[in-house]
Amino acid sequence: VGYSLYLDLVENLRNGQTRHDFPLGDEEKRCRHAIELAKQGKQVALVCSGDAGIYAMAALVYELIDREPCRIAVEVHPGISAFQMASAKVGAMIGHDFCCISLSDLLTPWVTIERRIKAAAEGDFVISFYNPRSLKRTDQIVKAFDILRPHRNADTPVVLASNLGRPEEKVRIIRFDEFNPEDVDMLTLVMVGSSQSRAFKRGDGKTYAYTPRGYAKKMEAR
Amino acid sequence: VGYSLYLDLVENLRNGQTRHDFPLGDEEKRCRHAIELAKQGKQVALVCSGDAGIYAMAALVYELIDREPCRIAVEVHPGISAFQMASAKVGAMIGHDFCCISLSDLLTPWVTIERRIKAAAEGDFVISFYNPRSLKRTDQIVKAFDILRPHRNADTPVVLASNLGRPEEKVRIIRFDEFNPEDVDMLTLVMVGSSQSRAFKRGDGKTYAYTPRGYAKKMEAR
Repeated sequence: VGYSLYLDLVENLRNGQTRHDFPLGDEEKRCRHAIELAKQGKQVALVCSGDAGIYAMAALVYELIDREPCRIAVEVHPGISAFQMASAKVGAMIGHDFCCISLSDLLTPWVTIERRIKAAAEGDFVISFYNPRSLKRTDQIVKAFDILRPHRNADTPVVLASNLGRPEEKVRIIRFDEFNPEDVDMLTLVMVGSSQSRAFKRGDGKTYAYTPRGYAKKMEAR
Repeated sequence: VGYSLYLDLVENLRNGQTRHDFPLGDEEKRCRHAIELAKQGKQVALVCSGDAGIYAMAALVYELIDREPCRIAVEVHPGISAFQMASAKVGAMIGHDFCCISLSDLLTPWVTIERRIKAAAEGDFVISFYNPRSLKRTDQIVKAFDILRPHRNADTPVVLASNLGRPEEKVRIIRFDEFNPEDVDMLTLVMVGSSQSRAFKRGDGKTYAYTPRGYAKKMEAR
């Protein structure tokens, strides 16, 4: 059971396994369908991309079985979320304390999101923004950068990553002051470094970025 | 190359592959050894547990090749970090915005850590604490809960997880006001819910916990 695009990515569908395709959106319907099949005694995989536990279907399934108890067994199998792959592709951006914030205000009031961005800015976290922008929602990422600006240097590395792990994968490191909201769409992960994050060029001509845990400072202190 | 305990977990060491065992601690020495072998033209895997990018060796390797440039290719392969597995084991605790904070003040000054805990408390994140306690460091997790107390209800779910994915795995959900620092050691991950996180008992008698993304509120609003 899943969004068609994700089911297409599943390799080796075995004999006897049936695809239950759903369109984008209406996550509740998708989860209810999976739960219904399980109630009928079927073994069901509700397929998500990234980590099923992170901005995906696991929480909704638990929400539904909390409100409407039923006798099905549920197991969550974690996966690699976009922020982990983005960090790995550019180096080691999440090498120290980090947070993830979804900018979608479809289900969360904007005041709550704004409070989180302020807290993350003041707490000097490496921040990954999920759902930064949609066709109808273009303001949020602009506001987020406005909140962050007083707390981050102009050269703070920012990672823009889309289609991670797919042939169309695109990952870029830019400076905080180079950020252009037009470069971002619904499928982009935007990761803003902490005050300690650093970008540097290697001999291969490519730029890498990481957030040190403090070993270098320790070396200097010796 | 890696900490012996992690190398023991590697299955199917292939012919021609050599183990380079290192004791716990002195991460710099371990990373330098891996870099040296790579410089000699060897293909090297620096093995970490969890995600190599999260509180592990990836950032230190990038720190070292930033300070002392060399001509080796580096690839980071992300993995499942303890907070993801802990969340999955109990349900879906990281179903909404979350952060990770290391409480180790070996490399990070306590004032910085304290500022992060305050920010995470005010931002209402689901918070995962790594390195909550060691034999010498017993204060930090107590202070962390003191900072969080005014911002979290007494019944906020707290997850204590250790030895995730190993035979000795132990995962418990308790209430915020039941937290006892004596139940925590160096290898425990401590995850504190947000104001929205919820624990509930299922028909199997077990307690599960999740952080809703807001679908239920949306349903009510209809």
